[in-house]
Amino acid sequence: MYKQRGLLIVLSGPSGVGKGTVRKELFTQPDTNYEYSISMTTRSPREGEVDGSDYFFKSRDGFERLIEEGKLLEYAEYVGNYYGTPLDYVNATLDAGRDVFLEIEVVGAAQVRAKVPDGLFIFLAPPSLSELESRLVGRGTEKADVIASRISKAREELEMMNLYDYVVENDEVTNACDRINAIVTAEHCRRERVEKRYLTMLKGE
Amino acid sequence: MYKQRGLLIVLSGPSGVGKGTVRKELFTQPDTNYEYSISMTTRSPREGEVDGSDYFFKSRDGFERLIEEGKLLEYAEYVGNYYGTPLDYVNATLDAGRDVFLEIEVVGAAQVRAKVPDGLFIFLAPPSLSELESRLVGRGTEKADVIASRISKAREELEMMNLYDYVVENDEVTNACDRINAIVTAEHCRRERVEKRYLTMLKGE
Repeated sequence: MYKQRGLLIVLSGPSGVGKGTVRKELFTQPDTNYEYSISMTTRSPREGEVDGSDYFFKSRDGFERLIEEGKLLEYAEYVGNYYGTPLDYVNATLDAGRDVFLEIEVVGAAQVRAKVPDGLFIFLAPPSLSELESRLVGRGTEKADVIASRISKAREELEMMNLYDYVVENDEVTNACDRINAIVTAEHCRRERVEKRYLTMLKGE
Repeated sequence: MYKQRGLLIVLSGPSGVGKGTVRKELFTQPDTNYEYSISMTTRSPREGEVDGSDYFFKSRDGFERLIEEGKLLEYAEYVGNYYGTPLDYVNATLDAGRDVFLEIEVVGAAQVRAKVPDGLFIFLAPPSLSELESRLVGRGTEKADVIASRISKAREELEMMNLYDYVVENDEVTNACDRINAIVTAEHCRRERVEKRYLTMLKGE
């Protein structure tokens, strides 16, 4: 049964760009065709958060045991708490031929890129490039310091996006979701991928 | 005005796969965001065909002059008639930052790939891979010669798709169109492309 391994889709980007909002919107769509990998964390649940739905809530000891056992695809510590992605769930889902979606911080994304080079890495960017473009076009009417600060922000983003395959501007959440879905659809049509499917099938003969 | 050059989108595939039907459907959609490059031909107009809309109809002499002057991006001869793509229109449209869509034969697509390596090459494939998959799954109920002929067809397609970036299965015209549009959207989000936009803009400063 020529089942092709699923795609690992990684959404990341600078903090505050709206990764969580975009991810939630993607998974409220009725035809979302990939599985969300719920993160683990040692932080306490916030009001309304459900274990096994928002996060898997773990003790610090439990989390560190998982690190030692190599059971995390990526992890990082923020403000004294661990956050990470359970490896077994990701592998089992990919092996079943389903795509897996991670929404993680840039530090974690760099770890995943190193371990899964053929993953699909999407950088969610603030609409600063478009804003910068329109500001430059309106040059003369803008203060120099405003433009200078936009330019320096653009340079920072440029550096961060370096290890990603795609850059999606988060101008509107629904636009960002449409672009992400288009990228996933396109990736499934990539010649190398289709070719592999043909070859696996013909070899199976 | 940091205008990025448009994308050259090339749709091709084996004859009879339905390239023309898919292209026509794409250009009846209200939000199609690329320009169709009308081909030139020396064959006579068929009933209902309009010069400048279906084709630019040319005399044989006129066409051969364009070949000599290097005014064709690609051309080929079929059944005694020339077909080709006017270069000036394609370049002017790309320079204006608009995407250009060509629907051409595989021979022409190979010429374009050689001249425009960074074009977006989409291979429209018959649903034979899916059919083969379902036939192989139902193995035992299928005659050996039917399976053998499908396999040999799959091998041929595999060889043809080699110079393309994407493979789109034409199972249904609307599905094929959705996939093509997703590929174009995704291509505009490719990191290298967005990066170039940032860099051009920052250098302009």
